[in-house]
Amino acid sequence: MNYLIGLIFLAFSLFPSSDFSADPPKINPERLSSSLKKLSTFGKNSAGGSDRVAYSGHDIEARVYVKELMKNAGLEVSVDFAGNIIGKRAGKTPGLKPIAFGSHIDEVPNGGDYDGPVGSMGAIEVIQTLHENGIVTEHPLEVIIFTNEEGGVIGSRALAGQLSEAALKTVSSSGLTQAEGIKALGGDPSRIGEVKRNSGDLAAFLELHIEQGANLHREKLNIGVVEGIVAIEWWEFTFKGFANHAGTTPMNMRKDPMLPASRLVLAINEIVISYEGAQVGTVGKIQAYPGAGNVIPGEVKLNLELRDLSSEKIWTIYREIEAKAKLLAEESGTEVSITHQEVASKPALADPSIQKSIESAAKSLGFSYRYMPSGAGHDAQEMARLAPMGMIFIPSKDGISHAPSEYSSPEDIANGANVLLQTILSLDKSLK
Amino acid sequence: MNYLIGLIFLAFSLFPSSDFSADPPKINPERLSSSLKKLSTFGKNSAGGSDRVAYSGHDIEARVYVKELMKNAGLEVSVDFAGNIIGKRAGKTPGLKPIAFGSHIDEVPNGGDYDGPVGSMGAIEVIQTLHENGIVTEHPLEVIIFTNEEGGVIGSRALAGQLSEAALKTVSSSGLTQAEGIKALGGDPSRIGEVKRNSGDLAAFLELHIEQGANLHREKLNIGVVEGIVAIEWWEFTFKGFANHAGTTPMNMRKDPMLPASRLVLAINEIVISYEGAQVGTVGKIQAYPGAGNVIPGEVKLNLELRDLSSEKIWTIYREIEAKAKLLAEESGTEVSITHQEVASKPALADPSIQKSIESAAKSLGFSYRYMPSGAGHDAQEMARLAPMGMIFIPSKDGISHAPSEYSSPEDIANGANVLLQTILSLDKSLK
Repeated sequence: MNYLIGLIFLAFSLFPSSDFSADPPKINPERLSSSLKKLSTFGKNSAGGSDRVAYSGHDIEARVYVKELMKNAGLEVSVDFAGNIIGKRAGKTPGLKPIAFGSHIDEVPNGGDYDGPVGSMGAIEVIQTLHENGIVTEHPLEVIIFTNEEGGVIGSRALAGQLSEAALKTVSSSGLTQAEGIKALGGDPSRIGEVKRNSGDLAAFLELHIEQGANLHREKLNIGVVEGIVAIEWWEFTFKGFANHAGTTPMNMRKDPMLPASRLVLAINEIVISYEGAQVGTVGKIQAYPGAGNVIPGEVKLNLELRDLSSEKIWTIYREIEAKAKLLAEESGTEVSITHQEVASKPALADPSIQKSIESAAKSLGFSYRYMPSGAGHDAQEMARLAPMGMIFIPSKDGISHAPSEYSSPEDIANGANVLLQTILSLDKSLK
Repeated sequence: MNYLIGLIFLAFSLFPSSDFSADPPKINPERLSSSLKKLSTFGKNSAGGSDRVAYSGHDIEARVYVKELMKNAGLEVSVDFAGNIIGKRAGKTPGLKPIAFGSHIDEVPNGGDYDGPVGSMGAIEVIQTLHENGIVTEHPLEVIIFTNEEGGVIGSRALAGQLSEAALKTVSSSGLTQAEGIKALGGDPSRIGEVKRNSGDLAAFLELHIEQGANLHREKLNIGVVEGIVAIEWWEFTFKGFANHAGTTPMNMRKDPMLPASRLVLAINEIVISYEGAQVGTVGKIQAYPGAGNVIPGEVKLNLELRDLSSEKIWTIYREIEAKAKLLAEESGTEVSITHQEVASKPALADPSIQKSIESAAKSLGFSYRYMPSGAGHDAQEMARLAPMGMIFIPSKDGISHAPSEYSSPEDIANGANVLLQTILSLDKSLK
């Protein structure tokens, strides 16, 4: 077996310009399934969900396992000051910047076993495959297992130089602050500035991830070529009327903010779907104040979230909703005030040539695919600040995520890991 | 003066069938204003509101003042096992049952100075007026200052035999349980059953009160002749959809319960106002679950309250709303479940002949008036279980109540007390 690997390696070395479509290396699906299964045992709760929240004992124990896997795959493993696990593998050509890839292993409370682990174990499986096939790339390779993705993409923000002192003081799902948690992972929050990479330090960044939506599952497609990660904007609308006794105030003497608020919920839905495209708009919170069954509310607050790959489109839609809110307030004798909160105000666009590479990899492996935005946030959005970025999606059953019933099939996971592998090998040739 | 009173008294005694329209006794407006003002000092807070919640030190101190006033008006004062202050005055005709009247002096936290005090001080002023005019009625008279009206009409429920052991254990705004609070007032919760009156023990019950709505204020009327206290029913509607990621779930794949819930809020308003009459319907609470800006809600709950003098009408309106809710759920691919809570499922109707007596009293005093339901609950609703009941309303400025800005003018208060006095004198003649 070693002899055969040596031969293949020799062939690659002799004909570096040949492509791998004839007989490309393939990941080992059983081994990948097995490492995912093992990872899922860390923090599994009685409801079948994962309580492997960042910084918890479960997270820390799982990281020991992951580091071991990475070392076994030949990586030089370290933990940076932000707690990110970094696995490095040298390349052949001096001076080339690393191609980095990876994901996270932390979960939301009572989460699933796929959001993060697929891209993390997939990345390690790619390295393991290269390792046992004796393939050495031109570029150095770097696997990154990011710190606390679910709690605010902490590790990737640190790498992108976007993690403020204030953010380090926020309390995570584990109960620890980010700073305390990073310490527990072996990092050093006081030196967090030193982990910052500069734009150009990496040749590319790739992330394999479950879709977390039902588009691929519903359309029975193997692979999603991500066009980018959407921008997100939040607004809070407050309609003010006049709180009064629900028994003694006649219907025609009320200034009930429930009415314009309800009309706005319906208008938001109508306005968002009136545009062509994949934009989404959500009212996830609504509350009446004082909020008693026998008091006409004096105030109703509701939250609007808009997401799209185009910030301009988000604002066009918002302006229409804002105008409608003002009209509804006027018509009902109430007042509306709006506050805006930037969540992720810029979309993180995937690099067009990397998108093409992912498409070619999928095609060469015989997989069906589609281009699509990522509606969810990922570490890749922060990494896009540093390097050309690409993301590969695989189907999520029924689009369910952040829940114990989150599921992607072993076949879909293996397909995704193979597309990741082929994309890396293809970028290794095309990138400088 | 005493000689004159003696003469008038003699005239009444000689001609008991004569009415008082020629020269009826009148209450003393300045004295009434003054006692209301004094009462308002107990528990006045820095915001100008009243913190005289039942069982508090403020309540207990105010009761000392009130008992003193009652004794000065010639009443025989006692505190029953429920903490109600009872002031008795003998009548002339043996065997007649007492005509009772009164209200409460406790307030909601940061409440006003009129809701309760007007009827309490008005009742004492009526007795004081009779006392100083030397008028002795045929019927015994009884002034009742009820225990903890704002916290669940506790004193009147005890009199009506409606106060359960469980209710005694509930915690009041003072922080004490009802049982502890009653003890603090000098009552004895272990003997609460003994305060129960039987139907027929009283000849009538009257309560003077501020309207707490804006009908009289807006229509510039002096007096409201209350037709009854409305029945109240509560329902909770739960629309169930499917909670999902607000970023990754396309608009056309959502089962968002916010949409049918919002449509129902609007439908409730339309349905309630589509009926003739004074019924009111209120959605005072609405909440989305899990209630995060980035999660499509899985569930939205909202509360409906309907009030009307006719339970039958309430249920007719409810059935229409229920049918609409089911239709909206069906159309949106969600499910709706409804739970019902009885709040005050029976209206407490005022006795028709007492309503007529109040109307006649108002007319004889030259006051404008209207018939109207009471949308708010009162001790009179419990007393209606025991005796023919009547209520007299006076205007509330802008309909504001349960707030520091609650206000009724000294003139309106004096008018109300005079109507109470004339009604008592008229019922004294007409009732057996």
